Amino acid sequence: MAHKEWIMNSVREQMPEKRWRHTEGVIQSAIQLAKQYGSDPSKAELAAILHDVAKYWPVERQREVLIESGYAEDLLAYDKPLWHGPVGAYVAQKEYGIADQDILNAIRYHTSGRVGMSLLEKVICLADYIEPGRDFPGVEDIRRLSASSLEEALVEGLDGTIRFLLEQKQIVYPMTILARNALLKEAKETKHK
Amino acid sequence: MAHKEWIMNSVREQMPEKRWRHTEGVIQSAIQLAKQYGSDPSKAELAAILHDVAKYWPVERQREVLIESGYAEDLLAYDKPLWHGPVGAYVAQKEYGIADQDILNAIRYHTSGRVGMSLLEKVICLADYIEPGRDFPGVEDIRRLSASSLEEALVEGLDGTIRFLLEQKQIVYPMTILARNALLKEAKETKHK
Repeated sequence: MAHKEWIMNSVREQMPEKRWRHTEGVIQSAIQLAKQYGSDPSKAELAAILHDVAKYWPVERQREVLIESGYAEDLLAYDKPLWHGPVGAYVAQKEYGIADQDILNAIRYHTSGRVGMSLLEKVICLADYIEPGRDFPGVEDIRRLSASSLEEALVEGLDGTIRFLLEQKQIVYPMTILARNALLKEAKETKHK
Repeated sequence: MAHKEWIMNSVREQMPEKRWRHTEGVIQSAIQLAKQYGSDPSKAELAAILHDVAKYWPVERQREVLIESGYAEDLLAYDKPLWHGPVGAYVAQKEYGIADQDILNAIRYHTSGRVGMSLLEKVICLADYIEPGRDFPGVEDIRRLSASSLEEALVEGLDGTIRFLLEQKQIVYPMTILARNALLKEAKETKHK
């Protein structure tokens, strides 16, 4: 079995079947976006396969890995749904032997975003919003924007997430605001070129 | 003429009559909130009188004061409507002789909010949202919440501002998110007491 297939099977075993179908959708959208915007499709595929590897891990195991990894410790003060990205990146490196830093960052920041996202990071974050199985208010707007601008589509996606958190009276992770501001600037600068 | 009346007349001369009527509303609401929540009504009155003193200054003059004051220099990278708070605080100290740091902070942070707002800072920020002349979607929700919780009312107000900025595809000042998160925590902790 090729290494990629082994990773896919291993990841699949760690989540409900429904979440694996989501992951398949993210793989499909990530490859398509990578081709469209000139990122490496095989890196996009690998990052997509692994992006949610830790999503269904018990919270305590996620907490342990976050502490062990040393990075993202500030995340312990924020909502648990933000944890699985950094945890997944650490696991991808330690248990699946992924050495490519861009792939690891794409996994790490796929939920929160960050300032200075690479092309691959944008592709994975956006694919997670628009994969074919997604169906939430506003997803069609994000899909439409994804045809012409990664940055505009991501701002639309992150703004939807932020609006949701405001409505639910939940804490907003500050890095997500910084990421969204930075992408908005990039989108405006690209338009004015 | 008493010093307070002299300040009022001087501030009034620096804005359109409509904005002065808004300031009168903020004075009224600030005194009422101060009495309700145990802040000093005369400090609240003075902060309210001065909060918008620099609002209608030419942008270039605001920029100069921001640079001269040395604080809030990061604001130069953010939207101009955020400038008049810190500029007003500096002017209140230098030109109107206000020495009380709590009053100066209430003026400085009345638009952005900040982490660790004092009672007086909350009163002025909230009075600016709910003064009787205000009429925007959601203002009644904020007024309703202001009867029972400064923090819940302020979260509602700041969230409205953030939602507006998201809709307008404008940059969101990160400190406002931090302020809102901190107030949300305070509100939840108070409720659980």
